[in-house]
Amino acid sequence: MFRVRNRTELETRNTKQINKMEKPYVIGMDMGGTNTVFGIVDARGNVISKSAIKTNTHDDVNLYINDLHVEMSKLIDAAGGIDKIKGIGVGAPNGNYYTGNIEFAPNLPWKGVIPFAKLMTEKFGVPAALTNDANAAAFGEMTYGAAHGMKNFIMITLGTGVGSGIIIDGKVVYGHDGFAGELGHVNVMRNNGRLCGCGRSGCLEAYASATGVARSAREILESSNKASLLRNIPIDSITSKDVFDAAMEGDEVGKEIFNFTGRILGEAFSDFVAFSAPEAIVLFGGLSKAGDMILNPIIENMEKNILPIWKGKVKVLFSDLKEADAAVLGASALAWEL
Amino acid sequence: MFRVRNRTELETRNTKQINKMEKPYVIGMDMGGTNTVFGIVDARGNVISKSAIKTNTHDDVNLYINDLHVEMSKLIDAAGGIDKIKGIGVGAPNGNYYTGNIEFAPNLPWKGVIPFAKLMTEKFGVPAALTNDANAAAFGEMTYGAAHGMKNFIMITLGTGVGSGIIIDGKVVYGHDGFAGELGHVNVMRNNGRLCGCGRSGCLEAYASATGVARSAREILESSNKASLLRNIPIDSITSKDVFDAAMEGDEVGKEIFNFTGRILGEAFSDFVAFSAPEAIVLFGGLSKAGDMILNPIIENMEKNILPIWKGKVKVLFSDLKEADAAVLGASALAWEL
Repeated sequence: MFRVRNRTELETRNTKQINKMEKPYVIGMDMGGTNTVFGIVDARGNVISKSAIKTNTHDDVNLYINDLHVEMSKLIDAAGGIDKIKGIGVGAPNGNYYTGNIEFAPNLPWKGVIPFAKLMTEKFGVPAALTNDANAAAFGEMTYGAAHGMKNFIMITLGTGVGSGIIIDGKVVYGHDGFAGELGHVNVMRNNGRLCGCGRSGCLEAYASATGVARSAREILESSNKASLLRNIPIDSITSKDVFDAAMEGDEVGKEIFNFTGRILGEAFSDFVAFSAPEAIVLFGGLSKAGDMILNPIIENMEKNILPIWKGKVKVLFSDLKEADAAVLGASALAWEL
Repeated sequence: MFRVRNRTELETRNTKQINKMEKPYVIGMDMGGTNTVFGIVDARGNVISKSAIKTNTHDDVNLYINDLHVEMSKLIDAAGGIDKIKGIGVGAPNGNYYTGNIEFAPNLPWKGVIPFAKLMTEKFGVPAALTNDANAAAFGEMTYGAAHGMKNFIMITLGTGVGSGIIIDGKVVYGHDGFAGELGHVNVMRNNGRLCGCGRSGCLEAYASATGVARSAREILESSNKASLLRNIPIDSITSKDVFDAAMEGDEVGKEIFNFTGRILGEAFSDFVAFSAPEAIVLFGGLSKAGDMILNPIIENMEKNILPIWKGKVKVLFSDLKEADAAVLGASALAWEL
């Protein structure tokens, strides 16, 4: 019996190895409101090929998937055909890991509930899994990035919106319904808070997103007479990039805006720490390019507001994934679990 | 080989059964700042015997454990001796599950870091595990109570302080350092918030604890001329129980205080939901006796502030464990895992 059992184990192991050799790649796909970027990724986290299509030119999700199939097939064929692909991991706004659906995404052209993972599997003939873009980023950071080896951290994505992916005990927190981790929508201003895209007031996202930063600029410029380089720009077209450029040139208003944004983030982070006691909070996305200008006020205000037991203990880090690849890598990490 | 393996398996299984028969009980112990309550619990969650000692009369933790040993031994002997006890589960303020230490507990007579689980194991000769009281309560609620069968919920204890135990995927969230789940200390009032016992300002605990409710009463009575039954009580000796009694008699100030407390809690809960998307939030402790008077404003304000995807979906429940047994049961649930 021993020998037979061992032979069976050996066969199983060999079959697994052959499978791994036969399917050495996954596809990672990052769906944004404007563009969809995808790439073929190997087991070491190398993006071996990459391409993109427009998201918002397709009113019908089936036409979108058709276009995706045409473009993705070029990469797949170059990599040796679909038999080499273990699965497809998708990061999508309002993506639900449990159901594989995209549900009521305000920034996508398709309304209601879209069974996206199912449609992808049917079209490509390989398994597909879905999560929201911030969870995918957290997955990528844990698998290949700044949080490699960490079992408890929070990923905060500072882009057009503010997203989050929460890792506890080495796993993404999905919660009861698959939608956990909406830290861009905790309240940071109970009274007279700014209106947020979600319809509520005072959300973190209304202050700490790129649009929030631009809005802070308009508010400060309109409510004061402070001299600023930003006054050279038509007030309604000021972007977070303009604020960054001004601050880099020593503009006081520009610096004040980053201090304000960092304070709001740092205060919010002190509450996040009280929830899940993470080892680190990892920042990703456009605003994180501001470097110390945003990091210093975040850390200062987080430390000022945090419970004594956590003072000086929680790291705030920038993602160290190449920004161009991070979203694709994050989504791809999901596909290895399939 | 097969036969031998099977015999070994059978023996192992029998040994396990014998162990379970030989060790049919655990001890659950709830350490409060004033009293320590403990009991012997069977596998079905019956508290078969119970006793208590004072906590705060022992300046030396070793003397406390000696007294505990004397009193607990009476129960243990009546249950058939220490061989029948699988282990001891302890719920203690600032108890750290990972280390078994009680660390810097402001409400206990012993300062610094106390290796409590180790001391208990040495004294009693059985394994001991430790967590904080709110985590123990969450454990008990999941094992025997209102959250039975739930894998994602948040326990909020409304007592002298405000504590929390967070369950995600069926497990207590301990975080990187063992101290996760301090939701009594998230900020609910950034400007001019009340000073909290933790040294910071604006914490949930400063508003929603029993002392917070009494403080709300003093603030309202001192800042207005509203008629109230509470004016019959010396203002510095008003308790949350007095506020409850007044509100039950229709007192407008009493009702206003519960509405205010419920609003603060409901607003905070809407942020907690954005973090972990729980199936339910379970309330436990003295204030939860206020029933609908506290529950209605909590639900109203949580629903008003919650992200649209969760509207009408998150239950707010009262614990259904017998209050006298809940803490002991919760701590005992920990001991079965040993």
